[in-house]
Parts: sequence; structure tokens; C-alpha cells
Amino acid sequence: MTDIKPLLFLCAAFALAARADEGMWLFNQPPRQILRQRYGFDPDEAWLEHLQKASIRFNSGGSGSFISADGLLISNEHVAADALAKLSTSGKNYLRDGFYAGGPGREIKCLDLELNVLQSIEDVTARVNAAIPAEAGPAAAFQARRAVIAQIEKESQENTGLRSDVVMLWQGGACHLYRYKRYTDVRIVFAPEQQAAFFGGDPDNFEFPRYDLDICLFRAYENGQPARIKDYLRFSPSGPGEGELVFVSGHPGHTSRLLTVDALKNERDQILPFRLASLKRGEALLTSWSARNLENARRARKALLGTQNGRKVNDGRLAGLLDPELMATKEAAERQFKAKLGAETGEDKKTVCQAALAAYDKIADATRIESENFIPYTLLETGQAFSCESFRIARTLLRAGDERPKPNGQRLREFSDSGRASLELALFSPKPIYTDLETLTLADSLTFLATALGADNELALKVLAGKSPKDRAAELIAGTRVRDLAFRKSLYQGGAPALAAAQDPMIELARLVDGPSRELRQIFDTRNEAKQQAYAAIARARHLLLGSAGYPDATFTLRLAFGTVEGYAEQNNPVPPFTDFGGLFARAAAMRARPPFDLTPLWAARQGRLNRATPLDFVSTDDIIGGNSGSPVVNRAGELVGIIFDGNLQSLPGDFAYGEKQGRAISVDSAAILQALEKIYRAKALTRELLDGHLRQ
Amino acid sequence: MTDIKPLLFLCAAFALAARADEGMWLFNQPPRQILRQRYGFDPDEAWLEHLQKASIRFNSGGSGSFISADGLLISNEHVAADALAKLSTSGKNYLRDGFYAGGPGREIKCLDLELNVLQSIEDVTARVNAAIPAEAGPAAAFQARRAVIAQIEKESQENTGLRSDVVMLWQGGACHLYRYKRYTDVRIVFAPEQQAAFFGGDPDNFEFPRYDLDICLFRAYENGQPARIKDYLRFSPSGPGEGELVFVSGHPGHTSRLLTVDALKNERDQILPFRLASLKRGEALLTSWSARNLENARRARKALLGTQNGRKVNDGRLAGLLDPELMATKEAAERQFKAKLGAETGEDKKTVCQAALAAYDKIADATRIESENFIPYTLLETGQAFSCESFRIARTLLRAGDERPKPNGQRLREFSDSGRASLELALFSPKPIYTDLETLTLADSLTFLATALGADNELALKVLAGKSPKDRAAELIAGTRVRDLAFRKSLYQGGAPALAAAQDPMIELARLVDGPSRELRQIFDTRNEAKQQAYAAIARARHLLLGSAGYPDATFTLRLAFGTVEGYAEQNNPVPPFTDFGGLFARAAAMRARPPFDLTPLWAARQGRLNRATPLDFVSTDDIIGGNSGSPVVNRAGELVGIIFDGNLQSLPGDFAYGEKQGRAISVDSAAILQALEKIYRAKALTRELLDGHLRQ
Repeated sequence: MTDIKPLLFLCAAFALAARADEGMWLFNQPPRQILRQRYGFDPDEAWLEHLQKASIRFNSGGSGSFISADGLLISNEHVAADALAKLSTSGKNYLRDGFYAGGPGREIKCLDLELNVLQSIEDVTARVNAAIPAEAGPAAAFQARRAVIAQIEKESQENTGLRSDVVMLWQGGACHLYRYKRYTDVRIVFAPEQQAAFFGGDPDNFEFPRYDLDICLFRAYENGQPARIKDYLRFSPSGPGEGELVFVSGHPGHTSRLLTVDALKNERDQILPFRLASLKRGEALLTSWSARNLENARRARKALLGTQNGRKVNDGRLAGLLDPELMATKEAAERQFKAKLGAETGEDKKTVCQAALAAYDKIADATRIESENFIPYTLLETGQAFSCESFRIARTLLRAGDERPKPNGQRLREFSDSGRASLELALFSPKPIYTDLETLTLADSLTFLATALGADNELALKVLAGKSPKDRAAELIAGTRVRDLAFRKSLYQGGAPALAAAQDPMIELARLVDGPSRELRQIFDTRNEAKQQAYAAIARARHLLLGSAGYPDATFTLRLAFGTVEGYAEQNNPVPPFTDFGGLFARAAAMRARPPFDLTPLWAARQGRLNRATPLDFVSTDDIIGGNSGSPVVNRAGELVGIIFDGNLQSLPGDFAYGEKQGRAISVDSAAILQALEKIYRAKALTRELLDGHLRQ
Repeated sequence: MTDIKPLLFLCAAFALAARADEGMWLFNQPPRQILRQRYGFDPDEAWLEHLQKASIRFNSGGSGSFISADGLLISNEHVAADALAKLSTSGKNYLRDGFYAGGPGREIKCLDLELNVLQSIEDVTARVNAAIPAEAGPAAAFQARRAVIAQIEKESQENTGLRSDVVMLWQGGACHLYRYKRYTDVRIVFAPEQQAAFFGGDPDNFEFPRYDLDICLFRAYENGQPARIKDYLRFSPSGPGEGELVFVSGHPGHTSRLLTVDALKNERDQILPFRLASLKRGEALLTSWSARNLENARRARKALLGTQNGRKVNDGRLAGLLDPELMATKEAAERQFKAKLGAETGEDKKTVCQAALAAYDKIADATRIESENFIPYTLLETGQAFSCESFRIARTLLRAGDERPKPNGQRLREFSDSGRASLELALFSPKPIYTDLETLTLADSLTFLATALGADNELALKVLAGKSPKDRAAELIAGTRVRDLAFRKSLYQGGAPALAAAQDPMIELARLVDGPSRELRQIFDTRNEAKQQAYAAIARARHLLLGSAGYPDATFTLRLAFGTVEGYAEQNNPVPPFTDFGGLFARAAAMRARPPFDLTPLWAARQGRLNRATPLDFVSTDDIIGGNSGSPVVNRAGELVGIIFDGNLQSLPGDFAYGEKQGRAISVDSAAILQALEKIYRAKALTRELLDGHLRQ
């Protein structure tokens, strides 16, 4: 991946020069100067606020936007896949067959989907810092931080009625309070067949040229009626032009651009190889099980797609870190910044700079301790050793019993009062859970536990209880009652005594590992606090020496990216920025329409109605990453011209450094959306609502 | 896998009781007593010699047998796949489309296939042991053993003209000289479409019920004419009956039934998890690359099938070792045997028994040292860090240059005089090598090298030469000339000076790692010698205390298995021993004929001609393992009634312990072969030759 030229990391670290379309910018710290200098564009507050309030976060992971005054919203089919899979049965496969309601009365309610729309941002850094005693060690500081954050969130929620999350930015350098309007009555209006949304499947995932109609339309409801939406995006019937400036407003999940070199090497040498081995293990498991019969395939489909996607993402991230050029740039930047810190002698700045220098060593120490505990932590606390829904539910119930009686500020973060509604929505989801799939994944992960710790390890022996991983998994899944919703609710209400009385084998397994698991979490929480303080010290020095330092790493909170619709070169061959319907049919023909390159029956029958020259997908230089899926792409006028659904392979090292030369965001063109809805799906009412901005009565 | 009841391990270790159909027996030590007691069958020498000389070993891995006086032989399509793939091009895909010559003149010669037919076995244990000085340490003993074996093989080859291999049996307890007739002009007569041979693909691999016509017919030639064969098997038109006694004569590749408990735990906790991670990494790589276009799929097909097969095999083996019942049985057997050794006080036996007891500790020591060096050894010496044909060729050339000038007895084993013809056949194979696939697998394995050693590791840095794994792989594959056959031959002839002058980047890479790689090999060769001596000590004690101890672990040499055609129960449901053509069509219909459950055009068109009730595949209790593929299944009369092509999932722990309750060998029924050749392929001349036993002029 030598194409990655992470020049802008230097920019981000040292200056705000407008050298590329880099950045996942905060809405309260937008890149005004760059936009003015590079594009002569100066969005006003209203432009930004409108875009912010039209933007949506999906709790299942992903982004979207409102596109009508009557609650209509758009995202990706692959963001909707979780909701579609949960609604599907062996008789009615929404994921495979798609869905078109044909009217508000016939829209289907999702089982556990929560949407968040950002209403305001408040900087609470000072209040958080003030609550942490100056001389507190990491453990005490972590406790103090947890308590003050829980308090801030609770107060805000009680005062405003809004979901209130304190977000750590700059790896801990700043704390912002984000307030969201929640929507939990969300209904599916239209989904294409997954094969139309994901034509080319895993083989073409993260590739370009690409031919996917990866969209899904929902409607938000309030009090049983379509929600009235003030801020929605107007839909462009024509899509963007080549070279046009386009913005992306969405929720990038996670980046690691500001990590120290030590931390990056730990990612490279330990975390990513381990994660990739897990993903490839999971992929082999789910692929071979899915292939045995069609119902298996349906049940495992979502998990399999997620695993394949994760494999490509992390292969790309690892390739980025194994690119000596990328790493050399990182090392040079860190060296230069450290030299600058060391050279600072002025009384006013010296203390801050010396603290920043010391912070690098603190991060290295914390990283080393995390690294030593990484495998057991991943197995036990992140649950890789017990991979199944039943265990996740059992652990949540067990911990809820222990945590809820505690004061709000002393609980594990996920049990705070402010998060309670969202936690319960997820915990009491009536989604289907398949015992055969549960047994399969649990047996595989128990096998992994035994091999990772050694089968004679004391904890492994206790967990397996004298049985083979396969037999133990079968016994646990058959024996537990946590899949019964009423049982689940009774244990949640009854708390610790009810949990003890239940003698449920999965809850007892969760109890068996909870001690060591909490110890490991404590180690990671404490090291994380130490790292946050250290990164905050570096951030302070950076602000002091360099002024505003651009944008923080992504945290699954709303960000603004900008860029242009622009192709690139691959091995000296130009890759044009647009594909079209004609290209879709050509790719299907070249692959003899073998799955996943087949047209659906509807597309095969109606392809003649489409204009083959209509743009289908396009690429732009916007700086995005996983979590941005479904984000609206808007032009200067704020019109929706596309929907982000992917990045190309060359964009994957973007976790560590933006690369403008070849890295690209991939979107569905709004022109293709309109034409497909009209010509393939005959969704007249829907295209009218898109163009009019409201439901016609 | 609680179904595995490794009772017979106890039998093998302690007595020759006829309690099950266990055993991969030596042809010179057949299980006469068991056959007599259990089946009232007493094969004479002629019966055994005829079967032995009709049995064939494939150097590509697999077994087969002669079935006509004119050199016609039968094996599996999946054993032939290597040869078929090497003959295929993007224009002519024998693997996909199959092949029927229609007459001797039109049979196609394989590029580098070598067949071996066992002519005689000679026990040379005494001569080998006499050559190893009593007080020699493992390093000196290894040298001495290597030298005497090379000498024995060379003498034998010069005296008889036969390929002569000294085989270590009983993990080193005995050395037998095997002499083979070699056939290197081998031509393809008939292969079905791979989809017919491997209906159900990876999903149904190692499963039963099963519906595969996994056969391939070749003809051996000598001096350009069909070879005249005295010992060939008569073909049964009707196949076996349920409950019938059937024998398997083939070449099981490897078993680990006599390993000590320490060694088994090392397999369980280190070797198998590491191997599985590699296989799953390879599977993800080849699957996603294959899916990008049809030509990729063709090029990678054989490697991908091998990887998937290996994944299932090793998942099954690991499941066996994680079955506490299997391991407890192993531990109990070892404990009991050690107690017996310790209790022996008689002067005549005590020395031998004490030596055997000490041997367990020596094996543990050697295993520990191997374990410490296992990862670098696997990366460098077995070449997992440089996975591509170009590297394998480059290393062979480099080492040939270093080894060939040495005296025969001092060379690395693969360069001994007696193996020269086979080595050169493989090295100078004109098989196609695809640069894109080479680059793909090399980049992936260099990535693995960097992550396994750490990207800052000195050797990793040297290997990568300042480039990313992907760029380095591309540079090496594009730069090397070893794929050019003339160049390859000139370097082999020119030896070390020519190799140095060539300045070929891949040869230079092989040179760069050759020092550390040879050091690791030296460690493993020496430990292996120490283990062989220790296992020999245990074998001596076992023979002394228990008499003849059954059969040694498999070593890809000819073995005889026996068993009955018999179904089994799975979760209390009976699994009948036979499938039929009707079952094939039903399975295809249930899977909506989606690949890999589609019928080929020929089968789809002609299915009506088949008798749906004709048996297609069957299971038997014969004790087989990988390498047995293609083995003839014969009845008491010595008639061929089937062809082994697989074992079921429950047979996979058979590497460590035979399990008769559910473990089964899977064969193609001879009745199905005859009917398919006649009705689907209209291969009249062939069916006549099968039934007559000779070509009709």
C-alpha cells in the first residue's frame, strides 16, 4: 500500500494547512479556513445546524438522514440488515427478498432499532477535570471520572429529556456532552433485495468500480404517527458532477490517527493479527455451516457478512501499518514533535511540554500492561470465549443484578441511569435467537478458549466442566432459559436473588468468569484512564505550540467531511469516478451471473427500463471510515446527492492516516436511487415523497 | 465428539484382542489372528501379494489400484485433481469439465505424476542400529543414521533398479526397506466433471450421507505402450452387501496414535491451533481472491480445496484431543503401561523397562525444545513465510547446489542419490505457475512472517527489505526467473557458481534465510533422532512385555485395513450405510441446485437413464485416514467393490484413536461407477475393459 501518503497527519499535527481533503471534523469546530482557502466555500451556522439535525445515528452501527418532513429517512441496506434479519423468518426472508410497504399503514416496525439525532454539543471538559483530584492515581481518577460523567449525563437527561452522552475527544483531551433526540419507533418503508444492494458480495466489497444500490428507507414515528421533521435534506434528482465539492455528515466509528508510535506498533504486532485470526476463524466456521443448507445460510447470513467485512477492514488496516512509508512518516512526526517539546525553554510553556514528553512513556507503560493482559481480556471481558447471544444476555442480567443497586456514579458505565432506556431496549429485544447457530459459535469459541489458554488451564477446565467444547456448548445452550423473554424480564426485575435462585447454566457460567473478567476490565479501565490523561497532556502541548490541531480521532459521533467527486489511478490505469447501470449488467455477464454476481429476478426482468448511462455509484475524496455507512452526501446547496456505503481498499489504512492519492469513499448516486425506485420497484408514492419532501395525502 | 471410544488404543498397546475393526496393518505383519477370530477369514500369501502388487501410491498424495492387465488404474478424482489442474488452461478446464479419452491413443500424459508399486519389504533395523554408535549423542546418531540409510537405499536401487526407501516404523522402533516399481508415464483415461466427483463441495466434505462419483481412471505406460500388469483387481459389477467384510489396501499418510501424552498435549495446545489459524487464513485469502473473477477461481481452485479439506481435518483432530474422554483414555493407558514398566524387576527385563520409562522424559524434553522453536521452524524451514512455488523452486535449486557436491550420506535427505530421479521429476515439472496467485500467497505469507515475528524483528526487516509485504512480494515474483524451465535446469546443472552468478532475487531470498533455516532444521532433526531412539526404547519394552503390538502409526506406506459395510447412529437417528442416485437428485433439489449442489449439464440431461436405486456411496468400519483416498476396497474374493474417497467427521479424531462407534470410511460403490460410465458418460470401451480386465483390440 505504498500509495498512502499520510502527509496530512503532519498537517494535523503541526499546522492547519489546506493540503488535502482530510478530516472528520467536529460540527462545533468545522474546518472553515480550509473550506474557504481550498474551495471558496463558507457555510453559515444555519447550513451546519440544518445538516447536523438532519443527520441520524443508528444504534446498530451506521448513519442516515431525514429526507422528508414526514419522518422518511435513508441509510444503507447493509445498515438496515440487522433490523431486516431480526424481522425475517424461514417463511419470510426480508433480507433476501427486500420489502416495499406501499403506504405508511403497511410499514413494518423494527424490533430494537434506536436512532439518535444530535441536538446540541456542550464542552464539559473543565467540569470533568475539576472533579478529578490532581494527585489521584489512575484507579482513583478513573472512579472520579466515571462518577462525574454519570452525574453530568443524568442531570442533562433529567433537565432536557434528551439522551445525554459525555464523549471523550482527543483520546481524553476534551469531554463534550452530546444531547440526542431518540427515535425508537422506526419502520421499514423500502429495502431492495440484498443481492441488488450488495451485488458482488464479499468479493467486490471495498472494491471499485462497484455496482450496488445499497440503500434502505425507513420512517421515524412518534406517538404512532409519522414524525414531523423540520430539518430534512432535499433530494437531488441528478446526483453530483465530476469534480464537485461534496460533504459527508455521519458517524465515523473509530480511528487511531493520533496514537503514539508505541501504541501503533502494538496494534500492528498484537491486536490486529489476533483480531484477524479470530475473524478468519469465524469466517471459516460460518461459511461452512451456511453452506450445508439454505436455512443455515439465512440464519448466519448477517453474522457472516459482518465477519467477512471485518476481515477485509482489518487486513487493510494491517497492510497500512506494515507499509514502511506510513510508519516512517508517523515516526518522523513523533520525533519532530518530541524535539519541539524538548526544545521549549520558555517558563510559560516548559511545564506543559515536559509533561507531554513524559506522557509518551506513560502511554508506552500502559500499552505494555494492556498487551500482557490482552488475550485473557479479549477472551473473558469482551466475551470472545463465549460467543453467542445467550451468553451476552446472561452476563448483562448477572451484572445488572450486581450494578443496579449501586449508586449511579459507581456502576460499570453501561449500567448508568442515563443509558438505561437504551440498555433495556437492547436487552428485551424480541429478536430471534437460533439455538443451532448459538451452539455452533459457542462450541467454536470454547475451543478457542481452550487452545488460547491451553486445555489444562485451570479456568478453561472449570469452564468446560469435564466436557468437550462441543458437548459443553450444546449443554449450555439447551439448558439456559435466557432466550425466554419473560424469564429474562423476571430476572432483570428480581435482581441478584432471582439470578441466584434461577440456577441457569449460562448465568452460572457468566458468574464463574465474572471475577477474573472484572479484574481484567479493571486493569484496562485503569490503564485507559492513565492513557487518557497522557494523551490529554500531549493535546495540551499541541494546542499550546501549534494552535488548534484540526480534528480528534473518530468516536462514533457526528462529524463533517468534505471532498470532491474524483477518480484515481491504479497501477497507472485511470479509475473513473462514476459507474452506471450498464456497468452492472456487464459485470454480471462477465461473471456468468454466478452468485454473488447474479441479477435478482426483478432486475433481470426490468433491466430494459433503465437508462444504462445513469450513474449508479461514485467515489469522492471525503475522509470516512466504518460507521459512516448510510451517511448523506450533500452538495454546497445542502441537497442530498448520494449515500455513502463503502470505502475502497486503499482507504482502509485511513484508520491510521488519510490517503488522498487513492483512498476513496464510495456512494450510491441519488440519480440511481430515483430511477431504480421508479423503474425497477415501481415505488411511485416514494419517489414523489423524495422529490416533494413530504407525504402526499 | 463423545462418540469416540478409543478402546482399541488400549488393545493396540496391551493386547491383540479382536475387539474392533481397528488397524492399519503392515503387509508383512497382517492381522491374521483377528481376521480368523472375528471373521473366520484366513488370507493366504498369494491373496496378500496379489493385493499388494495391485496397489498404487501416488506421489501427489493418495492411493489407487490396477484394474486391467493393460495398465488401467483407478483412484479418486480428487487425487487426480493435481494432475488435471496442471494440464488445464483458461481455454481447456479439465478439472471443471472432466475428460474421456475414448481410446489409448487419445489419453493425455500427466506432467509430473509418479506412481509407486510396492514390490518387497525388507527389515533393515539391525543394520541401521549397528551403524549408530552406542554412546553417540542425538546429533552424531542422526548423522550416522542418515549415512547408513542413504547407503542402504543407494545399494538397493543400484542392485534392483527399484525405488528404494527406508521407512521408520513405530516412531523409529523399526526400519524397513520398501522397494517400489516406478511409473512416470501415466495418462488420463477418464475423469468426471469435478462437480460430479465432489457434489456438495466443502460443505458436504467429510459428511455422510454423501453423493459423489469421486473416481478417476488412468493408464500406466512403459516404453510408450500400455504397461502389462500381472496383478490387477477384478472389478465387481455389483458392489458390496451390507454387513460384508471388506478390505482397504492403501497408503494412510500419517497417524499419531502412539504419541506420548506430552506429545499429544503439544499437538493440542500448540501445533493444531497454529496450523488451523494458518489454514483459515489461507482459506479466507483464496476464497476472496477466487470470487473476484472466474479465471482467479480456476487458478486457485486446487489450493483452495486443499485448504478447506485441511481445515476440516484439523478441526476434527483438535476436537478429538479436546474430548476429555479420549485424552483420559490415553492418560490411563500411559499410566498403566508405566506402572507395568516400573513393576518389572526380573533381571532380563528390568533394563529394557527402565530405559522405556526414561524414554518418556526424553520425549518430553525433545518436545519442549521443538515447541520453543516451532514457530520460526514452521515459518522458515517448512516455508510458511514464503508460500509460493517460486520460493520452493528457488530453495531446492539453492540447496541442490550446496548438497549435491557432498558425499551421499551427508546430504539433506531429500538430495540423496536414491531419491534423485523423483526429485528431478518434480523440480523440472512444466506445470503452469501463475504470477498473480504467487504474488497473492507470498504477500500474505510475508505479512504472516512480519506479524508472527514482529515487524521490527531483524530477520523480518531483512526479508522485507524496506518494503511492505505486498510490494516485496510483487517485486520478488516479478523479478525471479525460476519459473523459466531452461533457467531452472541451467542453475541445477551449474550448481553453486551458477546460482551465485544468477543474482536472482528469489534465490537470494532463499540464501538470506538459509542459515537460520538450516539451524532450525538441525534442531528438529536432532530432536527427532532423540525421539526416535526414545520411542524405539518404548517399542522394545512393549514387544518384550506384550508381544507383537499390532500395527505402527501410518507413514504413507502400504497398509491393510479391514471392516464391514455398516451404518451408524447420529443423535439417535440411524444413518444407513448406502446412498443411491435417487438421493443425489433429492439433495440437489433440496438445495435448489445451488453450487456446489448443482448437477452438471450432462448429469442433468441424462439423469433419467440411471436406476435411482443403484448404490452410489457407502460407509464401512475400515480404519483409514488421509492418504487412503483412492484405495481399492476389496471383498474376500479380492474383487474391487469400491473406492475409498473420504472419512466422516467422526472419523477425524482417528489420527489419535480409532473410533468404531461412529467413525466410518466412505467409498464410491463399484456398481455406481459402472452405471455412470455407461449411462452418463457412454464410455462403452471403458466399461468393457473394467469387466474383461483387458483392452479389447
